[in-house]
Amino acid sequence: MSVQVTQAQQTRTEKDLLGEKQIPADAYYGVQTLRALENFPISGVKTNFYPDYVKAYAIVKLAAARANTEVGRMSPEKLAAIEKACLAVMDGKYHDQFLTDLYQGGAGTSANMNANEVLANIALEMMGKKKGEYQFIEPHDDLNMGQSTNDVYPTAIHIALILHNDKVIKEAELLSQAFHKKGDEFKNLVKMGRTEGQDAVPMTLGQEFHAFGFQIDAAIDALRKSEEYLYEVNMGATAIGTGLTASPGYAEKCVAQIAKITGKPFVNPKDLIAATSSMQGFVMFSAAYKNLAVTLSKISSDLIFLASGPRNGIFEINLPALQPGSSIMPGKVNPVMPEVMNQVCYKVIGNDATVGIASRDGLLQLNAYEPVVATSIMESQALFYKLMPLFRKNCIDGITANEEVLKRYMETTIGIVTALNPVLGYEKTTELAKEALESGKGILELIREKKLLTEDQIKKLLDPAALTGQK
Amino acid sequence: MSVQVTQAQQTRTEKDLLGEKQIPADAYYGVQTLRALENFPISGVKTNFYPDYVKAYAIVKLAAARANTEVGRMSPEKLAAIEKACLAVMDGKYHDQFLTDLYQGGAGTSANMNANEVLANIALEMMGKKKGEYQFIEPHDDLNMGQSTNDVYPTAIHIALILHNDKVIKEAELLSQAFHKKGDEFKNLVKMGRTEGQDAVPMTLGQEFHAFGFQIDAAIDALRKSEEYLYEVNMGATAIGTGLTASPGYAEKCVAQIAKITGKPFVNPKDLIAATSSMQGFVMFSAAYKNLAVTLSKISSDLIFLASGPRNGIFEINLPALQPGSSIMPGKVNPVMPEVMNQVCYKVIGNDATVGIASRDGLLQLNAYEPVVATSIMESQALFYKLMPLFRKNCIDGITANEEVLKRYMETTIGIVTALNPVLGYEKTTELAKEALESGKGILELIREKKLLTEDQIKKLLDPAALTGQK
Amino acid sequence: MSVQVTQAQQTRTEKDLLGEKQIPADAYYGVQTLRALENFPISGVKTNFYPDYVKAYAIVKLAAARANTEVGRMSPEKLAAIEKACLAVMDGKYHDQFLTDLYQGGAGTSANMNANEVLANIALEMMGKKKGEYQFIEPHDDLNMGQSTNDVYPTAIHIALILHNDKVIKEAELLSQAFHKKGDEFKNLVKMGRTEGQDAVPMTLGQEFHAFGFQIDAAIDALRKSEEYLYEVNMGATAIGTGLTASPGYAEKCVAQIAKITGKPFVNPKDLIAATSSMQGFVMFSAAYKNLAVTLSKISSDLIFLASGPRNGIFEINLPALQPGSSIMPGKVNPVMPEVMNQVCYKVIGNDATVGIASRDGLLQLNAYEPVVATSIMESQALFYKLMPLFRKNCIDGITANEEVLKRYMETTIGIVTALNPVLGYEKTTELAKEALESGKGILELIREKKLLTEDQIKKLLDPAALTGQK
Amino acid sequence: MSVQVTQAQQTRTEKDLLGEKQIPADAYYGVQTLRALENFPISGVKTNFYPDYVKAYAIVKLAAARANTEVGRMSPEKLAAIEKACLAVMDGKYHDQFLTDLYQGGAGTSANMNANEVLANIALEMMGKKKGEYQFIEPHDDLNMGQSTNDVYPTAIHIALILHNDKVIKEAELLSQAFHKKGDEFKNLVKMGRTEGQDAVPMTLGQEFHAFGFQIDAAIDALRKSEEYLYEVNMGATAIGTGLTASPGYAEKCVAQIAKITGKPFVNPKDLIAATSSMQGFVMFSAAYKNLAVTLSKISSDLIFLASGPRNGIFEINLPALQPGSSIMPGKVNPVMPEVMNQVCYKVIGNDATVGIASRDGLLQLNAYEPVVATSIMESQALFYKLMPLFRKNCIDGITANEEVLKRYMETTIGIVTALNPVLGYEKTTELAKEALESGKGILELIREKKLLTEDQIKKLLDPAALTGQK
Repeated sequence: MSVQVTQAQQTRTEKDLLGEKQIPADAYYGVQTLRALENFPISGVKTNFYPDYVKAYAIVKLAAARANTEVGRMSPEKLAAIEKACLAVMDGKYHDQFLTDLYQGGAGTSANMNANEVLANIALEMMGKKKGEYQFIEPHDDLNMGQSTNDVYPTAIHIALILHNDKVIKEAELLSQAFHKKGDEFKNLVKMGRTEGQDAVPMTLGQEFHAFGFQIDAAIDALRKSEEYLYEVNMGATAIGTGLTASPGYAEKCVAQIAKITGKPFVNPKDLIAATSSMQGFVMFSAAYKNLAVTLSKISSDLIFLASGPRNGIFEINLPALQPGSSIMPGKVNPVMPEVMNQVCYKVIGNDATVGIASRDGLLQLNAYEPVVATSIMESQALFYKLMPLFRKNCIDGITANEEVLKRYMETTIGIVTALNPVLGYEKTTELAKEALESGKGILELIREKKLLTEDQIKKLLDPAALTGQK
Repeated sequence: MSVQVTQAQQTRTEKDLLGEKQIPADAYYGVQTLRALENFPISGVKTNFYPDYVKAYAIVKLAAARANTEVGRMSPEKLAAIEKACLAVMDGKYHDQFLTDLYQGGAGTSANMNANEVLANIALEMMGKKKGEYQFIEPHDDLNMGQSTNDVYPTAIHIALILHNDKVIKEAELLSQAFHKKGDEFKNLVKMGRTEGQDAVPMTLGQEFHAFGFQIDAAIDALRKSEEYLYEVNMGATAIGTGLTASPGYAEKCVAQIAKITGKPFVNPKDLIAATSSMQGFVMFSAAYKNLAVTLSKISSDLIFLASGPRNGIFEINLPALQPGSSIMPGKVNPVMPEVMNQVCYKVIGNDATVGIASRDGLLQLNAYEPVVATSIMESQALFYKLMPLFRKNCIDGITANEEVLKRYMETTIGIVTALNPVLGYEKTTELAKEALESGKGILELIREKKLLTEDQIKKLLDPAALTGQK
Repeated sequence: MSVQVTQAQQTRTEKDLLGEKQIPADAYYGVQTLRALENFPISGVKTNFYPDYVKAYAIVKLAAARANTEVGRMSPEKLAAIEKACLAVMDGKYHDQFLTDLYQGGAGTSANMNANEVLANIALEMMGKKKGEYQFIEPHDDLNMGQSTNDVYPTAIHIALILHNDKVIKEAELLSQAFHKKGDEFKNLVKMGRTEGQDAVPMTLGQEFHAFGFQIDAAIDALRKSEEYLYEVNMGATAIGTGLTASPGYAEKCVAQIAKITGKPFVNPKDLIAATSSMQGFVMFSAAYKNLAVTLSKISSDLIFLASGPRNGIFEINLPALQPGSSIMPGKVNPVMPEVMNQVCYKVIGNDATVGIASRDGLLQLNAYEPVVATSIMESQALFYKLMPLFRKNCIDGITANEEVLKRYMETTIGIVTALNPVLGYEKTTELAKEALESGKGILELIREKKLLTEDQIKKLLDPAALTGQK
Repeated sequence: MSVQVTQAQQTRTEKDLLGEKQIPADAYYGVQTLRALENFPISGVKTNFYPDYVKAYAIVKLAAARANTEVGRMSPEKLAAIEKACLAVMDGKYHDQFLTDLYQGGAGTSANMNANEVLANIALEMMGKKKGEYQFIEPHDDLNMGQSTNDVYPTAIHIALILHNDKVIKEAELLSQAFHKKGDEFKNLVKMGRTEGQDAVPMTLGQEFHAFGFQIDAAIDALRKSEEYLYEVNMGATAIGTGLTASPGYAEKCVAQIAKITGKPFVNPKDLIAATSSMQGFVMFSAAYKNLAVTLSKISSDLIFLASGPRNGIFEINLPALQPGSSIMPGKVNPVMPEVMNQVCYKVIGNDATVGIASRDGLLQLNAYEPVVATSIMESQALFYKLMPLFRKNCIDGITANEEVLKRYMETTIGIVTALNPVLGYEKTTELAKEALESGKGILELIREKKLLTEDQIKKLLDPAALTGQK
């Protein structure tokens, strides 16, 4: 009999359209979450793998409850309890209850119901009630009041992506600064620029690193601009955008609350039906992450090229040694951080492909494939967020220049011949370049031999500052 | 001997770094174009397949010549001749001389030299000189003055894409209007909305078509915003961004000229070195085309779904019959326009993948893979530009509604039960829905049977305008 | 002081090229693993997330040790200890020590060294030595004898993918059988086939489900065939394929051992240098998973289409209800399993894109991006492996047919007119179809009205078995 | 009146389900082709852009006519005329009549009807009849006898792809041979191999080029194997795979005829319904082209790396100069052929993405997106087919080695230290490498200084043949 008692204490009974289920007594989630746990044990990655995503649900539900109260549909007492519950989750509590797998059918219904159930039960406890006493606060009727998964779910994803975007941008800014700092450090080191792998014209190593920084700056700019595509959130749409069951005025108030809570300029869309089945915000936002991937991958490959060597490569720079480079080749040190950055970038580009395919496959009033879109972009964000500081501290900050290598290159290069174009003309300089290449002689040597320029002209034309466009 | 004379008249001799070549006497292009024709007979698609692209070269060269004159490096006489040449090409003339394959190695050097050679020879003729008399106007020293392929080529592509973007946007606007017009036409036809393929809640067919229109509007907005990523053009960068051989002040004046000629707000980038090897503008611009593809593909698939039938499908709408639908099934009429639109969309998505891969593979101061990026985005633009008016006129404009089908669906649907949620609560309405489904009865019938609502309540709750959120 | 003692007991000191590190005393891994843990805390997904991958390392190391012993380079005593260690890991033990993040720079050096260190320390314990007493068994010199990460790492991935492929195939076979079983169950239910969403010609629902099964069978066939691309493993290549430090005869013996241990026909490649930097095996193997994704996604979308309804859709079949379908629409049941399957398929297609990009970016004698290739394909395998049984049990097995719907469609369809083609000719039947469509009459009705066929002809031509090609 | 006569001579009248159209009198195509020309002026790329594709239609129609005759349904007289028509087209004649755009809705109906109409009219002329006298030979009833677009169209694409595959393979083989030839030529040139851009261990330049050749050989092998996925052709399926209107025995005989005509082992599929909507053959075949792209792109980037310089790069090899490399930098010669190869490879990878997206979007008994799949793979084939011989002749065949550079690298490298591992152990050799790197000394110098090895040992261990695994 004690067993029965124990059993009774260990679970509570909940039911839905499909029947009754036993819920662990200490669980804040309810019957629908439990069904989702049984239906979708797929990737093992759960809502709470991304804390900003859990917070986003609390923000949506808080905004909705406040708006519902403002329009006179929810009682201040219920609001008070729901507010406490939402704020607790926003504060990082109860995240262990947000358990649905990021892969799920049903267009996010399970994730939304997980939030409704958990917040209802927290609110119940805040009111001094027991979990499951839904007659006081009900997951559907109260937590989901005037809402549908079809507005809550995409809104929560928008918020989560934007919250995390700020963090990614902050790390990207630090990374850019690290490159610009190296740019300053290397500003006096003249080297040969390269196009198509071939010696081109002079520049400084500082210019090269500043350019890396500026490219990241541009990618950050795109991350910021693309955020705008997510500011429209379709709260108030309910099932398909017609707003059925939502109260008049609620949609505007709810979105205004979200804007207030997050400090981001969220707005109601022009047309709720169009917004509810459109994935364009995700497509364009994902593109900015792809763009960051393209940028960081290009820079990473450049670093690998510049650091190649030590004896048989370009070897203009040294990357910090982080680990022995080889299990067989003693003393080898590999460019491991750019390599891992490249890999993250490839994954992000693949994720963008997934986003595109999923986004075009909506059917009429809904796109049921938002979950894979969400998990793909969130993964891209998380990978960058975790890797960028490592890349910066363990690689960029420690880069040093091999000045003697740079100098040797400059002394032997033919590429400075371009600087003579305006004086000697393209045809003449072409011949000069050809002769230098074939004879093994230096350009300067030939100019003097042939008395093509005076020493004054040489000094002026081949002054490093002039050559590198800094004067 | 007459043969020799003829021969002499038929070709002229030009030479470059690699030696002499015979050029057809009537050709405006020169030795480097000829080499390109021999080196890259790859896709058969040439610069002049895209007239805006040819014009873009003329615009760049005109702007550069004017800027060079403003800074005192080019003589007004030369400018006068070059201006005439450029204006003629901008006017659609001489396009048959722009012959290099869009696929080319050398990062666009061949395309740039093709423009330099053709414009030089046109200018020579405008001056009363003969083709090939480069002592008067020289392809490199004059047409390419202060320039490099590495600034001219990406700038020309930016301009071409923007010129064509205006045209695509115009067609997209007409397409959107066609959907909105149908939206107005169908505004009184109530139907069931669908989510996840399942009956959801009521809406009007007009709302559905307006939503298609609004989604295209949003895609147009992204096309416009993404154009901004192309406004920065790196004229003045020359080879790698250091501006070697360009005169002081030239970069700013050249870009100002481009802005003036095109009426688009082109600007100098913050950092010319970063801009010269960055492909971010293309990545983000291509993303907007991918986004248009995602949008039009979703709409196309929806139309196919809604028009399925005639007897065993959804059959809410009819698409115009454009051709017998089958070589075997008599009387079958297929949704050919949405089908071909879908295919163009898939190609555009694939092109965006190509753009991403090519863009990340830059090496140091240049990305030599701009040609495939250019040809991929131009192809996407051209496919949409050609297909959208056909899609509009031959499909959207002729769509009709099957009113009796819509009506029948409304009469039998269970989905209106959602409207009762706020009055009866989720649990009660769920039971009602279940009973209707199992018994085959209608919702209204059950409500009345069970006296769950008064007739007044019924009237108010189930009024079509209220149900579809229009009141 | 007791603290010091404790400290001394809690860690041991190991060193490498970069200096000394303190290792937790109870850790089987060593200094290089520790560096990797510090360098690459990126995705949180570790080697041991994929047990077959951990086993694969043990298999490689076991095969290598045996081969080294066979060629007389390793002592039987060392082999005995190493064998025990490898067999324990193959048996599922010590997996908690395989901790490097799947994302890593260094082309897998960390993962390989993790295996070398853990197996060395297990072997040491098996010999009665302490962890870290590498004078008896050394991670490099013994566990990595005649090896390099550049042969061990890709070989381990090949093995892991093949081991898991067997499991995926088994689940795919069960899934196919489930479809074929439904095919048998529905074999007498005649329905209209559809092409381009339009009514086409008759078939049975059984044929439709058998076809799903046959398409999965074909995808399984491709999974099997693509495995062949992974049978070549480059053991013996060492660093770049020249076999430096490997003993004569070792390569062949090692691969033979792998074949023996796994029961799979692994072979030495024709050219070890080519094999070491080639990623073709991964590209082609990943393609087969993409192909499975394309197949299962097509089937999933078909199920969603066929199950659409209940009142306003196709509604030929019912999918089992797994959860309440909506947080707002009572009674709605959604096709959640096909939806989640679609999402996994989109992710797998995106993963294939990642594999392609990473695979082309090899540099000379190695492709350092194998880790992201490995993790992408392993993720695809795992998602399918976990989802397929859920999809089968919770969806396919429970599908039922709506016989009355099928029957109603057959009675009203025009599509049977195609069967009259051979008798009446395409032109005549086209007119008949047109008249039926416009008049609302049935085809049979018209035929009889017009006396186009005798009753005998009608019976023969429109017999369901004949119509559906089963006679 | 003469005008009327002329008019009468200039056009003939044809009609179909949608009404009458005037056809140019000299056109072999008919009304349905004309509709397609009006409906789909999209890409400008027509069936006859790919001659093998036109031939494929003739092959299909020839095989079908023969099979229909064998089963007693077509008269020998009609067969005789149709055979002549098909053979003429297979012989390259009348290709100017195959005019439908490769982008088309209707799942290829237009392309099939274009073939039916053209072949019917050619056959009519062969019989001494006039074009349009379809009472003697009819496009539907005769040319399409027992057929449907849904079997003819995919079968024709399969055949076209396989015919062109042979040509691509032949060029790929020649390309591989060119690499192997260079491999022989460079077999005595010892150099340092590189992994992760870092100096690794010695090899010969010959080994490096042979490896390129072997990688192409492997890609060829995949091209061949993937062809098998296209051997199943669904002739006899007619509309959806049930074979409605096809005669018993026809399917087998038709495919046997195709096999006989092409010399390729075409077979009937296991299940015609599954085969008719499956795109797996295209997915797997496209993957082999993606694999070729991955391979050739990797090789191209390697060549660019190895040829970088001339003064500030790796510069181990010289690529032939094909054109002046720069419009601004005199004397610069760029790796234009590897660059354009890379671009083709990126496009092919993008095309494979298109194939994947289109292939998963089939609906029930058909995938209407075969046209974009066909055009994408055909484009990939054509680009490779045209570029490979240029790449071979203008680049690979002319590559020369910079022996003095290779030698200098070998003299200064530290990488040979790996060879000492088996003798000195990993730890000792690591220290040696570190000392060499820091002191600037050579490895040999240090070994002798420290008397670590005898001269005999040195000779044996550092013998080039041993180092490079050739002994």
